[in-house]
Amino acid sequence: MSKAKNTTEILKRLRACFSNVELVDQPIDGYIVPYQDHHQSEYLAPCDKRIEYVCGFTGSAGLAIVLKSKAAFWTDGRYHLQASSQLDKNWTVMKDGLPGVPKPEDWLPKALKGGNGKVGIDPFLFSKKQYEKFDKALTSEGHELVAIAKNLIDVVWKDQPPRPANKIIPLKFNYTGMKWEDKIKLIRSDLKKEKAKALVVTALDEIAWLFNLRGSDIDYNPVFFSYAVVGLTFVNLFLRDEQRSKEVRDHLNASSGIDVTLLPYSTEEFVKSLEGLKGPEKIWASLKESQGTHMLIDNAVTKDSPIQLPKAIKNQAEITGMRNAHIRDAVALCEYLLWLENEVPKGSVDEISGATYLDTLRSKQDDFVSLSFPTISSVGPNGAIIHYFPTEATKRSLTTEEIYLVDSGGQYLDGTTDVTRTVHFGDPTPFQKECYTRVLKGHINLACVVFPNRTKGHQLDVLARQALWKVGLDYLHGTGHGVGSFLNVHEGPQSVSSRATDDAPMEEGMIISDEPGYYEDGSFGIRIESLLVTVKASTENRYKNVQYLTFEPITLVPLMKKMIDVKLLTSDEIEWVNAYHSQCRDIIGKELEKQNKKDVLEWLNRETTPISV
Amino acid sequence: MSKAKNTTEILKRLRACFSNVELVDQPIDGYIVPYQDHHQSEYLAPCDKRIEYVCGFTGSAGLAIVLKSKAAFWTDGRYHLQASSQLDKNWTVMKDGLPGVPKPEDWLPKALKGGNGKVGIDPFLFSKKQYEKFDKALTSEGHELVAIAKNLIDVVWKDQPPRPANKIIPLKFNYTGMKWEDKIKLIRSDLKKEKAKALVVTALDEIAWLFNLRGSDIDYNPVFFSYAVVGLTFVNLFLRDEQRSKEVRDHLNASSGIDVTLLPYSTEEFVKSLEGLKGPEKIWASLKESQGTHMLIDNAVTKDSPIQLPKAIKNQAEITGMRNAHIRDAVALCEYLLWLENEVPKGSVDEISGATYLDTLRSKQDDFVSLSFPTISSVGPNGAIIHYFPTEATKRSLTTEEIYLVDSGGQYLDGTTDVTRTVHFGDPTPFQKECYTRVLKGHINLACVVFPNRTKGHQLDVLARQALWKVGLDYLHGTGHGVGSFLNVHEGPQSVSSRATDDAPMEEGMIISDEPGYYEDGSFGIRIESLLVTVKASTENRYKNVQYLTFEPITLVPLMKKMIDVKLLTSDEIEWVNAYHSQCRDIIGKELEKQNKKDVLEWLNRETTPISV
Repeated sequence: MSKAKNTTEILKRLRACFSNVELVDQPIDGYIVPYQDHHQSEYLAPCDKRIEYVCGFTGSAGLAIVLKSKAAFWTDGRYHLQASSQLDKNWTVMKDGLPGVPKPEDWLPKALKGGNGKVGIDPFLFSKKQYEKFDKALTSEGHELVAIAKNLIDVVWKDQPPRPANKIIPLKFNYTGMKWEDKIKLIRSDLKKEKAKALVVTALDEIAWLFNLRGSDIDYNPVFFSYAVVGLTFVNLFLRDEQRSKEVRDHLNASSGIDVTLLPYSTEEFVKSLEGLKGPEKIWASLKESQGTHMLIDNAVTKDSPIQLPKAIKNQAEITGMRNAHIRDAVALCEYLLWLENEVPKGSVDEISGATYLDTLRSKQDDFVSLSFPTISSVGPNGAIIHYFPTEATKRSLTTEEIYLVDSGGQYLDGTTDVTRTVHFGDPTPFQKECYTRVLKGHINLACVVFPNRTKGHQLDVLARQALWKVGLDYLHGTGHGVGSFLNVHEGPQSVSSRATDDAPMEEGMIISDEPGYYEDGSFGIRIESLLVTVKASTENRYKNVQYLTFEPITLVPLMKKMIDVKLLTSDEIEWVNAYHSQCRDIIGKELEKQNKKDVLEWLNRETTPISV
Repeated sequence: MSKAKNTTEILKRLRACFSNVELVDQPIDGYIVPYQDHHQSEYLAPCDKRIEYVCGFTGSAGLAIVLKSKAAFWTDGRYHLQASSQLDKNWTVMKDGLPGVPKPEDWLPKALKGGNGKVGIDPFLFSKKQYEKFDKALTSEGHELVAIAKNLIDVVWKDQPPRPANKIIPLKFNYTGMKWEDKIKLIRSDLKKEKAKALVVTALDEIAWLFNLRGSDIDYNPVFFSYAVVGLTFVNLFLRDEQRSKEVRDHLNASSGIDVTLLPYSTEEFVKSLEGLKGPEKIWASLKESQGTHMLIDNAVTKDSPIQLPKAIKNQAEITGMRNAHIRDAVALCEYLLWLENEVPKGSVDEISGATYLDTLRSKQDDFVSLSFPTISSVGPNGAIIHYFPTEATKRSLTTEEIYLVDSGGQYLDGTTDVTRTVHFGDPTPFQKECYTRVLKGHINLACVVFPNRTKGHQLDVLARQALWKVGLDYLHGTGHGVGSFLNVHEGPQSVSSRATDDAPMEEGMIISDEPGYYEDGSFGIRIESLLVTVKASTENRYKNVQYLTFEPITLVPLMKKMIDVKLLTSDEIEWVNAYHSQCRDIIGKELEKQNKKDVLEWLNRETTPISV
């Protein structure tokens, strides 16, 4: 972990802005810096890492508040240690979740001395919901939240990196299965139902999906910086000049009668466009859209974006693409597991060199674009740290003594993958085998469930935990998330988590991850993760004429038989493992033959022989 | 089903009130009548059945709106047919839940002609939440919701029955396990934590629990009409004169230094008391309390009542009492099932005579007070109507050809019971056996689950459905509800239902029902219901030092082995059935011996022999 960053000078310059009349209409007493860009992105481009700039913290969640004579930083349990080591004396680290630690919205009104305090924010970095939380907390104590037009971090950030503007590519119809013009028509029919004139879209994956375009402005997410406003009679897409290639313009120059107006990507242009829409007619902007957006809308429809559902419900072309991407991805992972089997006993592999080799294998597969998230490669106790990524300081060697957990995935032109396998190259202990087997039982129980159409994923979460709970074990994360189609590896609106009860109902074509785990602090971590696609189930009955659904695995990578305590499995579970392995052998085997990887094929055949009591 | 009631005269008199200046400050354009009393009771006393008076509907859910020239009545799917047959031409029946049927709050603003409509309500019959829903809907369309001091139905109801004022009895310490004075101290410590001066309580079961008193003013619920205000320095209890017996006064005349001031039970007295509390200090009144109450409070703490949790978490005395009540209750039900076995083939029993006989058997058990709800006794297709109660017009005979479902329970001084068994006195079809067995698998799966302390019941709901879903079957009701200790048979704040995700986390000592079912329209109904008490589980591990919980059945009545398709059960499930039956044999057998019921004991021994594949 890096040494603390000296923030004295930065804070001095930021505080000087508080009373600079060229920046603020009236002097402010504080400024809030969230971990956020204009698009609610999960990963941030370097130019948007304002938290890192202002306080030195490099993790991916947090909130900084700078007052005239205090500065405080909140982050969750994953990052308490990291924050303490990365922040200097100018900062108080607020360990969110620990008893007695106030929430920022509770701390702030009290920390402002006297009454009538004014706290500045960049309204484009706060969702309407987040804004209202702070606004309510401040006004109820006689203070005020003030939207500042210029981002004050950007003002003081001398060497702020430029915003990436990488090449944008149109995605072919055989991958998308739906023309962008038809997607626009779909949105327009939704607009009509809501009697709204236009939809404001700022989530980058929604824009990429809508226009069948992909980029690489943000690591791991194949998206590009943009805004879009889809009206009943117009479509505005905001892009940097350098990204409006001939290819992009040709793609958007449809003969369908839908004209896309390309406008420059800048807050000013976006604001101007929204101001042009002002009037009594309704504008659709979900509550997740920024306060900046909502400040410009008089009469908003605040329902969730109508793009979420059609993006989550994959069409046939997308499902075929996802399946194909997973076949090639499985080849890379099988190759890696065989390589480890040979190399680990030699003592020549560590967490970083292993991950690097896996990334290389993946990159050699057809239509590979990038990783879908940084590879989690963790040995022994590092595997028990749920959001662990290996660094030079923490990396461990792979040995025949410890469990190895690898969670990785790729972006391919035809799909996105996310897979976790847990292996041991020596002799796992009986307890480790029991844990692995109970995690597997949960994985199978969720994968096999048959449920009525529109059941919510959170209702199914317990199925993956039941076998662990039986003996007092559990995992402190959700069981599953949605996955985009050559898009973000984490997407909504569905999920499988008891903590998220506002998830969208499951429908045919949705994809979720199935990833129960068990983490023994200081010792080992186990997780088994495959992606599942939701399909129609053919049930003997159909009560009240309801369609039933079930899942099919699209990740086809063998489980480690050595880790399974077969005695703990029911006969149905044994049958499931053997059927799954036979599917791996058939489908991945065929691809291995095609790619002429005979040693991997031999390994696959060995790893997928049936188990029995 | 009865013929429609002629409501012409009643509506005429009600509408005359709309402009009667002695009743309303300004003329109103409509009046809303909810199915509600001042106490949010599940069952209503006859004097509170204002819906039945105004429109003739006798079901237990609905909302009536009377405008100057229209009257409309909303009720849910259970009651659509009943409402259509019971309401006359003056009324439009709004079949809530059917496509295109507006919600009352959406219909009302449009039904008011022109702008500036005024709609009256009795604010003591609307929770704050319900009030706000209508208020928002009306004001957003330029209308107004007006609280009327006098209930206008009471004004026009000429032969309104008197409010029951039955004897109130103090409950002994061996049943309650906690003195009322200690309960008051508990509430006062909660008040201090919230910095509140007093708690307003109007839920009748909460008042009965708090003062260790029971009554019989409402059928099935052993409660009495009252309000209570518990202050840091005073306790006000509002009771009718005739209910303030010497026994009650002695009970409340504690030597503990806590004085209870007895005041007359009337809206006026209650209002006066709340007005006396006005000021800057906080008063605790949950959002479930009426708008009438909230209108009198300036500064409210709106958290859920602090009585809910200690009432739901049974202490050792209450659990012992519940177990004992269930033992005697099981004797009555076993006796009934044996009697049916003998009588049904003779063709001499129908749904009503059967229920009457069961009620008689129950009433002969020690410490019996009343039924805990009207006995559901249903044959064949009647069993598929989930809220069916037999009437002369609908009753069927019990035969050896059809399934019989009996859902019943009693109030005893030491506890409350609620049990459903489904039986067949001839040969069930293979499909009926499959359904029964899948319902049983769900029942067992929930009964056996081990889960971390403070898991929410709604997370467990799927466990009871999984085996039915597998073959496309389901039941359209929740899986479980809380049960009071010689109190209401339905109580919160915990429950097991995927539709109620705001349920309180499960804790040791809570009681829930476990009642999955399957209902084949027009043919048969199956439900298996036992009550379970939440107990500590001793798990091999304790991840993150969390205590695990599980359930123990307190209902001990044999399942019908003839209905079980043993091939569908796992070996663990077979073991569970045999262990459960052996518990029934041991515990109920002992009580049967004590009560010298030899024929029933013989039946019990026969019914509880082990099953095997």
